Amino acid sequence: MTGVTPTTRLRIRAEALDGAHAATDLRDRFVLPSGVTYLDGNSLGALPVGVSEAVTDVVRRQWGTDLIASWNTADWWGAPTRVGDRIGALIGASAGQVVCGDSTTINLYKTVVAAARMRPGAGVVLTDPDSFPTDRYVTEAAAADAGIEVEYCPPDHAPARIAELGTNLALAAYSSVDYRTGELWDLPAITVAAHEVGALVCWDLCHSAGVLEVDLDAHEVDLAVGCGYKYLNGGPGAPAFLYVARRHLADFDQPLQGWNGHATPFAMSPDYTPAQGISRARVGTPPLLGMLALEAALAAYDGVSMAHVRARSLSLTAFFLECLADLEPDLVVATPRSEAHRGSQVSLRHPEAFGLVQALIARGVVGDFREPDIARFGFGPLYLTHADVLRAAEELHAVLAGNEHLRPEYSTRAAVT
Amino acid sequence: MTGVTPTTRLRIRAEALDGAHAATDLRDRFVLPSGVTYLDGNSLGALPVGVSEAVTDVVRRQWGTDLIASWNTADWWGAPTRVGDRIGALIGASAGQVVCGDSTTINLYKTVVAAARMRPGAGVVLTDPDSFPTDRYVTEAAAADAGIEVEYCPPDHAPARIAELGTNLALAAYSSVDYRTGELWDLPAITVAAHEVGALVCWDLCHSAGVLEVDLDAHEVDLAVGCGYKYLNGGPGAPAFLYVARRHLADFDQPLQGWNGHATPFAMSPDYTPAQGISRARVGTPPLLGMLALEAALAAYDGVSMAHVRARSLSLTAFFLECLADLEPDLVVATPRSEAHRGSQVSLRHPEAFGLVQALIARGVVGDFREPDIARFGFGPLYLTHADVLRAAEELHAVLAGNEHLRPEYSTRAAVT
Repeated sequence: MTGVTPTTRLRIRAEALDGAHAATDLRDRFVLPSGVTYLDGNSLGALPVGVSEAVTDVVRRQWGTDLIASWNTADWWGAPTRVGDRIGALIGASAGQVVCGDSTTINLYKTVVAAARMRPGAGVVLTDPDSFPTDRYVTEAAAADAGIEVEYCPPDHAPARIAELGTNLALAAYSSVDYRTGELWDLPAITVAAHEVGALVCWDLCHSAGVLEVDLDAHEVDLAVGCGYKYLNGGPGAPAFLYVARRHLADFDQPLQGWNGHATPFAMSPDYTPAQGISRARVGTPPLLGMLALEAALAAYDGVSMAHVRARSLSLTAFFLECLADLEPDLVVATPRSEAHRGSQVSLRHPEAFGLVQALIARGVVGDFREPDIARFGFGPLYLTHADVLRAAEELHAVLAGNEHLRPEYSTRAAVT
Repeated sequence: MTGVTPTTRLRIRAEALDGAHAATDLRDRFVLPSGVTYLDGNSLGALPVGVSEAVTDVVRRQWGTDLIASWNTADWWGAPTRVGDRIGALIGASAGQVVCGDSTTINLYKTVVAAARMRPGAGVVLTDPDSFPTDRYVTEAAAADAGIEVEYCPPDHAPARIAELGTNLALAAYSSVDYRTGELWDLPAITVAAHEVGALVCWDLCHSAGVLEVDLDAHEVDLAVGCGYKYLNGGPGAPAFLYVARRHLADFDQPLQGWNGHATPFAMSPDYTPAQGISRARVGTPPLLGMLALEAALAAYDGVSMAHVRARSLSLTAFFLECLADLEPDLVVATPRSEAHRGSQVSLRHPEAFGLVQALIARGVVGDFREPDIARFGFGPLYLTHADVLRAAEELHAVLAGNEHLRPEYSTRAAVT
């Protein structure tokens, strides 16, 4: 297309790509504010259609009118496993292995302690030094409580280190996708390496659930955790989830013993006997408002295969990289260009990354900043189009052209995941 | 009033009492279903006016429109301590000592482990054999993880046993009000006894927060936990709370280390440094839908003193006892008749307690059943009147007169707290 400006060429491309992916354009399943291109689905997913009405029904009818009876009539009691199974369908887990509840941090605490107990002779949990901080904090805490050591090893060196550690390895605990760079790590390789020395794996799916095919069962993953408020679009502080492979359920001995995890919760038995099955990972009374909002939100995935979602996600991020290559070829891209190594996110390294993100927000393109120099753009594949992607790249181009990212008001920082 | 039937006499009494307590009749702050007398506020509080609208605003505007920006613009980040302080005002805790989040079970885990760490030489946590089961389960788990023993002692014998244990006692962990009988235990006496041997106390306020003056600061309580969905009316699965006395904050070292409890949560620092103050009891991303619903619900307490709430609560339960004495004098009341020993609940022991509760529900009077033989009636003082209390007693009388509790459909059991 010689003689055509980059912008015109990219607009034609966006249109063609949106046409090719029309079958997975699910924007009408979301309530999106006008004038905003939302590239922060890796932090807080957008609001799906129907969630507000579902929550109003929970508040007004289930709580306000039916009151305590809703534990039975609305099956509040079954929500953690019911919503868990719905999430399980998106991460390749057959029914009965996923429970919804608590936070990712608390679910990691359960899994690390339980894994240590399942491997009584082993003394090490291996994890990523660049993990999201909470993963480090709680892994350290849980390992100390369980009497094992934490060793740090980047994911790409993990298989070799796992082989060296041998039977001294209790657990390899990694994130599926790096929260800063968006790099997709090699889940099958690390899982196989751990199994070869008799160890367990725990995968943090916070940045992969809902955007790519995790296939937990197929890869024989042992344990996994993740949150409900990123790509699953469950709303602010939506409850997390926890996966325990069926073959481990009988041995999953987690320390946060609460009445919801008891074999006979209403018998008010004085001693703790864990429930059969994944319910043993339950603790206290579940956060029902958030959990039922998440359940309603997951309807956005009805009838959609994760293979199609992944194809759309890759097309969106690939097109963003293509736009950047055309419009801002000197930007440093922190995310791998290879599809096999990319989640649903594109991150840039820039000395003024904070100002870049703020100036983009001022133009209606919402990404986020992560210390020390990362501008993150997370692509919720259900509600974004290639036209949105182009708009984001064009606004980024305009920000840089006008030095808007260098404005003095962006010299102080604030950010939230 | 000779010559007047009991029913007539009780109606006159109810009217007089409602007149005397008119200033604390806050029914118009709640949305109550018609035809229902709701005596299960000890399990799930009624829906306060304004909560549904507040939740809709959180979902549609804060989440749907403002998206990630609401962490700052709606101060989502500050919600756990902001709501914590509001709860603190109801339990006699000055600002900066209460945080809202997680479940009661998880908060108990934090407090028991932290208490054990704060008393490194001591080897015992003393608790009530008849505690709500989750308190037992998680106390056992936390004590095992912390390397101390759990010893059981009923609350009325606790001061003597505490003195015997001496410096070997790390923590006395008791419920303020017994969940089955509604007995109010002697918080000051147990607290003083523990302090005399250098130990800490942790009070479970699930059945007292919102209905009686707990006065944590005044009694120099060390630690306390409680839930948001009973008398605080926060909705199903509302987040719990955790109190750490200011003098202990610097030493409160809880094991569930998450990024929300970090001193600099957005620095993404690799190592865990707990926040100054009560925020160190935070763990992961808070369950915002439920927490903001609870915040809206707490507005039902605006401008009301806990002394007046307690006076109304005692009048309601006393009048229920009076009605029972007149109408069903042979019923076995499990709750102390002395006001000093009564929470906001009246429990009956009855061999057919389950059928009794079910038959009452069929007549629109909602209480609940607890194994093995307890019919519980919890009085949410803000939204119940003495006329409601009389109606409940009259329906109970009618159930027993008609043997409705013996109906065969009540021979199988189901119940939820």
